[in-house]
Amino acid sequence: MAATNLPLDANRLWADVMALAEITDPQHPYTRRSFTPLFRNGRAFLAKRFADAGLAVRIDAAGNLIGQLDGADPALGVIAIGSHSDTVPSGGRFDGVAGLAAGLEAVRALTEKGDRLNHTIEVVDFLAEEPSEYGLSCIGSRGMVGALDTTMLDLTDPGGKTLGDALRQVGGDPDRLAEAKRSDVSAFLELHIEQGMVLESQSFDVGIVTSIVGIRRIEIVFEGAADHAGTTPMPLRQDALVAAANTVASVRRIAEQLSDEGKGYFVATVGILTVEPGAANVVPGRCRLVIDARTTDSALTARFVDAVECESAAHATLAHVKRTRLTTLSDGHPVNCDPSVRSALRQAAHALGLSETDLASGAGHDAAFMGRICKSGMVFVPSRGGKSHAPEEWSDREQIAAGAAVVLQAVKALDRSLQSRVKG
Amino acid sequence: MAATNLPLDANRLWADVMALAEITDPQHPYTRRSFTPLFRNGRAFLAKRFADAGLAVRIDAAGNLIGQLDGADPALGVIAIGSHSDTVPSGGRFDGVAGLAAGLEAVRALTEKGDRLNHTIEVVDFLAEEPSEYGLSCIGSRGMVGALDTTMLDLTDPGGKTLGDALRQVGGDPDRLAEAKRSDVSAFLELHIEQGMVLESQSFDVGIVTSIVGIRRIEIVFEGAADHAGTTPMPLRQDALVAAANTVASVRRIAEQLSDEGKGYFVATVGILTVEPGAANVVPGRCRLVIDARTTDSALTARFVDAVECESAAHATLAHVKRTRLTTLSDGHPVNCDPSVRSALRQAAHALGLSETDLASGAGHDAAFMGRICKSGMVFVPSRGGKSHAPEEWSDREQIAAGAAVVLQAVKALDRSLQSRVKG
Repeated sequence: MAATNLPLDANRLWADVMALAEITDPQHPYTRRSFTPLFRNGRAFLAKRFADAGLAVRIDAAGNLIGQLDGADPALGVIAIGSHSDTVPSGGRFDGVAGLAAGLEAVRALTEKGDRLNHTIEVVDFLAEEPSEYGLSCIGSRGMVGALDTTMLDLTDPGGKTLGDALRQVGGDPDRLAEAKRSDVSAFLELHIEQGMVLESQSFDVGIVTSIVGIRRIEIVFEGAADHAGTTPMPLRQDALVAAANTVASVRRIAEQLSDEGKGYFVATVGILTVEPGAANVVPGRCRLVIDARTTDSALTARFVDAVECESAAHATLAHVKRTRLTTLSDGHPVNCDPSVRSALRQAAHALGLSETDLASGAGHDAAFMGRICKSGMVFVPSRGGKSHAPEEWSDREQIAAGAAVVLQAVKALDRSLQSRVKG
Repeated sequence: MAATNLPLDANRLWADVMALAEITDPQHPYTRRSFTPLFRNGRAFLAKRFADAGLAVRIDAAGNLIGQLDGADPALGVIAIGSHSDTVPSGGRFDGVAGLAAGLEAVRALTEKGDRLNHTIEVVDFLAEEPSEYGLSCIGSRGMVGALDTTMLDLTDPGGKTLGDALRQVGGDPDRLAEAKRSDVSAFLELHIEQGMVLESQSFDVGIVTSIVGIRRIEIVFEGAADHAGTTPMPLRQDALVAAANTVASVRRIAEQLSDEGKGYFVATVGILTVEPGAANVVPGRCRLVIDARTTDSALTARFVDAVECESAAHATLAHVKRTRLTTLSDGHPVNCDPSVRSALRQAAHALGLSETDLASGAGHDAAFMGRICKSGMVFVPSRGGKSHAPEEWSDREQIAAGAAVVLQAVKALDRSLQSRVKG
């Protein structure tokens, strides 16, 4: 890294990350699941740090914790910076938290230098970005863009509590959800750890995110006959696992071909495969698998699905089993990051002497939802070994500070360039 | 079927099968697991039927229930007929029970006609032929041939009870296990349902078993890296499921080739495959699979294992994962049935006007252990649709009676031909 003299306090930023890491289930570091008492403890810490930095603190109807610094010309609207403070079970210290601490430190750096911006700045801790106990992720950012519909409020956790009630307990208001939808945000910037190996392996300081993948989940079920593994000759078998295993191989091969074409980011995974009855001496009678396909180009997913449909049908026929289900469980479209935000982030990196590269985000983020209501962009910082959603997750103090400095400089640039008034 | 006028009472035999079927867990017909109160109820019924038929009833040190009919020349030793009364969970009415009822009916037919044989006849209900809660099958027949070693007595069920204690509770005596080992048995005959489709599909009345497969169980574990399914590009993946799936396909293909060669019976199955962590958005980091390979010719298993070792290693390399385990969990050798017993069974079928064919047994049976101490053979009767270990298991009254008549005639023939005195 070229820059050592960054326009913010790397140690202070790091201290916030480490302080939040202490607020964890001690048996399963680092765990701070959304809606739990630990989550509310983490937010209490954040709210105090927001207030210490001179921000006005509130929780909106969608349960987002927001710290606000008024601009000189509030009619210009808001430039928001943020991420999330919830974690997966046994997750890491940086996923989400790094972006919050970066936003907070950027605001502190601005106010300390007396740099009053024209736009109002908000630091946002989005509610429940990670998959929650309600089977839903990005709850807060959905709410902020009007994509948290009332049927979602009726979702229940394993204990039977509704999301609506849970929202109330973290300070949101399900009855006034419409008020959470914003029309006054001009731009949103999110710093996040890469969760991959591109920046580390190619020694880039930061990544400028070009687009955030759309995620398609597909469930396939094969049904054959659970016959005796000893007395059923090979030609008479209806082995559901043989069809499923060949489908796993097909998914891998098709994904490699689409990825190799270079027309866009494409990955596909079979992460779930269950075998019934699952006994050594019984031919598998039923197999279920779930495919996760992610791309920056929906046309690639369409070709992938066509090929998987065709090949899995052929595998079923060859194994004398039936493909009794092929269902899309969920389908999110890819989101392109805003060109002006990308440009501001790139120029900021150059001005700071930091190396940067364009890259796609293979994970979903709040920034994808925010792209529906404003110019949205992301900057990635390196993840050691690409590890994420695990206690080993790591980014260096200087790496996060460098990314935060890029956010800070980009916010300042956008404050100047985004001078058109928002509709009131 | 040609024979309608069989030398025994088909209805009386059938009534015993149906009466035992009533002794079941009513929630999960047909369940009579070894060592349970229901199992002891079934044996109480059997013991009474043995006694009613004039048999002297005892339980040996290995927990086998034995009904004995003395021969005219006891020094000739014993011809035993039997099978087992325990079932798998939610099993059928015929697996095991058909062989016991056939043995009992054969003895009744003999005594009613005043056919006193020179050999002593025993009807044996072997203890726990099916896989038990102690992870062991064929417990009684192991005991009768001296293959139930004392380390097995220390095996525990999920509640912590030892097999030794369980043996005591069914009337066995773990301290005198050596006494269960027999040297006075000249021949053993077992009638069993086929559990396959050969007899039904080719319209044979009975099958004369040529050999009982040896069963090899092999465990393979692949370990890769449980990376993010969105942020890990295809070339950087270490996907354990890709290696496991390709191994499933290899097992299928190699087994088909060995089976097609016609040099012996060969089947192989992957019935267990587990994926960790098993989440849609995580690349599988660890997979475990268990292969069940069965053959009448150990040379085929050796070739199978060589090929699977070679191909699974290649699949691991291609998927950038490690094959951290390839272990033989168990290895039973195939057992050839005794030629003189096979011949007696075949001639009996011909004399009764029944069609017969040679076939291998793809399942293990008590007769395989008995082959270690005496001339051992089996006769199969048709299974509708090949279904077994399921409530749908079915064989017709006349089919079982025909098989029992074959056993009866073969016992009479063996009583004449096996005149050499056993060693005392």
